[in-house]
Amino acid sequence: MTAVTPDVLLDRLRWRYAVKKFDSARPIAAGVWAALEESLVLSTSSYGLQPWKFFVVTSPETRAQLLPHSWGQRQVVDASHLVVFALKEGVGADDATRLARRTAEVQGVPIEKTDGYRKMVTSSLTSKPQSEVDAWMTNQVYIALGHFLTAAALLDVDTCPMEGFVASEYDAILGLPAKGYHAIVLATAGYRASDDAYAAKPKVRYPVSEVVEYL
Amino acid sequence: MTAVTPDVLLDRLRWRYAVKKFDSARPIAAGVWAALEESLVLSTSSYGLQPWKFFVVTSPETRAQLLPHSWGQRQVVDASHLVVFALKEGVGADDATRLARRTAEVQGVPIEKTDGYRKMVTSSLTSKPQSEVDAWMTNQVYIALGHFLTAAALLDVDTCPMEGFVASEYDAILGLPAKGYHAIVLATAGYRASDDAYAAKPKVRYPVSEVVEYL
Repeated sequence: MTAVTPDVLLDRLRWRYAVKKFDSARPIAAGVWAALEESLVLSTSSYGLQPWKFFVVTSPETRAQLLPHSWGQRQVVDASHLVVFALKEGVGADDATRLARRTAEVQGVPIEKTDGYRKMVTSSLTSKPQSEVDAWMTNQVYIALGHFLTAAALLDVDTCPMEGFVASEYDAILGLPAKGYHAIVLATAGYRASDDAYAAKPKVRYPVSEVVEYL
Repeated sequence: MTAVTPDVLLDRLRWRYAVKKFDSARPIAAGVWAALEESLVLSTSSYGLQPWKFFVVTSPETRAQLLPHSWGQRQVVDASHLVVFALKEGVGADDATRLARRTAEVQGVPIEKTDGYRKMVTSSLTSKPQSEVDAWMTNQVYIALGHFLTAAALLDVDTCPMEGFVASEYDAILGLPAKGYHAIVLATAGYRASDDAYAAKPKVRYPVSEVVEYL
């Protein structure tokens, strides 16, 4: 018997949907948010590079400023939490070094023991044009997004992933470039409003026969 | 009290790691796999486009053929399941139409009611160069990957996401282009071997203070 049964998992995944209207009066409890914050930290990435930072915008004034750059989608101001998934600028050799240093620290091994890995990661990152590395690293940010949406659903937390926003305006308002990051995608998280009409709509998915094929 | 507690969620997320050596004698039980298959179908995507297909390679002969194109990583042959996350070629206006048709069918509304949505999605897909659409849709495939890895961990199923493979060889061996798809990323799933040395290594993550910032 697994800690979570297949039925419970599927129940939560069927329950989730992209919330259009959040209950602005209902915050995520601190203990639940702490678990979601840690689940962000635990996300998987290529080589373990973690080429990201998750900016959680808590200031209501800042969130109001972001609204016009979010196609007016009110999730940005109404949800309990607004998370900006941001990509580190110019991921390259320094990041391989940083990772090697962290690996040695966490695993309690001499830094020399991580040298082979550092060289392999460095070579992988520096043998392609930066634009290709950026696209590759952007993909990793989307792994973290999928991970976060699923983790939230398991804790009965509603979400809405959002690509409909002007990244350059987010960057400017939040000062991300000065920190070395760029906004890639958003997730709003909280609880659905009781009158969100979208909650009742059947989920639109293609039949399994069109989406999964056994070879 | 939520169906899954924060402690259970975090326990599973800390337990997971990128398995290097699977127990090749231990398959995923049918009921557990069925839930993972459905969780793939339930993945989130931009506009709900689901620009993907998940090819599950069951033939041992085919998997052996793929091994030399996977940097020799034996997860490809040893894991219970090998899933090739593939992107639909040339996502565009036809996909918006297909989605509108499916929406009308699932939600039981006349097709005309989905026309506004179809036009919006079409315009969004056709107003950018195909290469940009492909990159955008590739991101969606990675959402599905993050979703799958998390769902598996919740069911005590081990995984290893894999980008280290030659996509063009996978495409050729599996005949994906003829089906209109291209391999993007892999996930192997099953159960860790009892002697996988990687299972015991502490997980390397940056401290939360470096990964999450409140603004």
